[in-house]
Amino acid sequence: MSLTVENIQKSYRKQAVLKDVSIDFKEETIYGLLGRNGAGKSTLLNIISARIFADSGSVRLDSQRLIGNEVLQNRLFLMSEDNLYPKSMKVNKIFKLTEAFYGGFDWELANHLTQAFNLNPKLAFKKLSTGYRSILKLIVALSVPADYIFLDEPILGLDASHRDLFYRTLIQTYSDRPRTIVISTHLIEEIANIIEEFIIVDNGQVIEQKSGEAIKQSGATISGSQALVASFTEGMDVIGKDGLGGLVSYYVRDYQAQVIPEGISVSPLNLQAYFVQVTQREGEA
Amino acid sequence: MSLTVENIQKSYRKQAVLKDVSIDFKEETIYGLLGRNGAGKSTLLNIISARIFADSGSVRLDSQRLIGNEVLQNRLFLMSEDNLYPKSMKVNKIFKLTEAFYGGFDWELANHLTQAFNLNPKLAFKKLSTGYRSILKLIVALSVPADYIFLDEPILGLDASHRDLFYRTLIQTYSDRPRTIVISTHLIEEIANIIEEFIIVDNGQVIEQKSGEAIKQSGATISGSQALVASFTEGMDVIGKDGLGGLVSYYVRDYQAQVIPEGISVSPLNLQAYFVQVTQREGEA
Repeated sequence: MSLTVENIQKSYRKQAVLKDVSIDFKEETIYGLLGRNGAGKSTLLNIISARIFADSGSVRLDSQRLIGNEVLQNRLFLMSEDNLYPKSMKVNKIFKLTEAFYGGFDWELANHLTQAFNLNPKLAFKKLSTGYRSILKLIVALSVPADYIFLDEPILGLDASHRDLFYRTLIQTYSDRPRTIVISTHLIEEIANIIEEFIIVDNGQVIEQKSGEAIKQSGATISGSQALVASFTEGMDVIGKDGLGGLVSYYVRDYQAQVIPEGISVSPLNLQAYFVQVTQREGEA
Repeated sequence: MSLTVENIQKSYRKQAVLKDVSIDFKEETIYGLLGRNGAGKSTLLNIISARIFADSGSVRLDSQRLIGNEVLQNRLFLMSEDNLYPKSMKVNKIFKLTEAFYGGFDWELANHLTQAFNLNPKLAFKKLSTGYRSILKLIVALSVPADYIFLDEPILGLDASHRDLFYRTLIQTYSDRPRTIVISTHLIEEIANIIEEFIIVDNGQVIEQKSGEAIKQSGATISGSQALVASFTEGMDVIGKDGLGGLVSYYVRDYQAQVIPEGISVSPLNLQAYFVQVTQREGEA
């Protein structure tokens, strides 16, 4: 099984949104799709799942083009920020509709999650808050029998406890039934541990595709008291700083291993700091 | 100037969403409105800004009821998750419409922010991504001449750099023109430093109203190496744990000052950990 995106280009009114995007998605892998607001992530996901057309390029599953092939298209599922359900349709009706459309639905999982997230299945879609709309859409996405699941901003509006429950659910369902899951999100640090491979999109292009491990190892987090860390990192390429409790963490690129003084801790790079740095725009500080 | 919310009750189909909510909003104060998904935050903000009716209770500005009083209502502005603008209306037309409706608009600020956030003023609302819809609504909210600004999930879909720009903008406009700003959000740690007073809503009721300072001082963050922190916090009321770099932080309630061993750092409580704890539901861990 293979999903291949080749040379995708897309413009809106002469403005290029996707310039030339090619990605090979591996089987049974959890991807993180990162990018600034307006980088083209949602457009890309909509093209891959055949909801909108590219100007040129192709999306192929097992070498066959997806366009015009409904059987193939149903092996992909996109959970998007758009609210596509009829406003007055109830939650359990949406589940049934999904089952009819995709030819299958994991009712056991859906019922379990409906309870765990405290979602009322009798409510109409329009009565759900932003957070609960995300929860409904997540449950649908995890319950369809697709081989490729694309989650565009899945945790929009979710509170801290529900975000945590979502991350745990994702790991559980992936281990129960491995498939490829692509998550687009702005809360990078929160998903860092779940993601195997990161794809960074900037300005309509893939500027980096790397394993989380490789990104982490391309730099280091130096933590300790402010004075110690500042002196230890002098002359290093510091790309970001954070504070937690009375301690600070500096994020350093191209860290060279060396003797570490007492009171200093060196660990892998913080992904959010790395991302902010590589996608920084001119004039931003 | 005073804004008073008294004994608000609201049910949907016999289900109580707001049970009995009373809040006095102080002048020129930045509030954080926190609550789990479904706690009733958005319903409360919609009632305060007269977009929906309460079943009972009142909202008064300078002792006058807001209901039916358009002049008073225009002194409040709600930026909500709902997309109220006509889909094909362009950004700059939305600014003009807002000016006409509210009798004023800070064009200098709006133009500055449009540029800083890289928002194209000629795009139609429907062409904006979720992140840019939030950005547009934020710019509108900060540019209207209202005395009370309510921001419901203002940073929905914003990337890390844009969130940072928003926080800095908020502090700047508040210092230029102080007014009362109420922010409802799920990214608690990120706004912790901006907020003067927290209102925590759970299950349709205000369960706590406290200054950020008071919450922070009701507990402590204990940071250091895993082994040291675990041994130091033995017997304490640990309400949460976090890791950053090679270090851990434990969040402790009712911390009693004591001699602090070397390698341990004690600082104010982490707000998100505190919030998750006080709003935890039965069966959640």
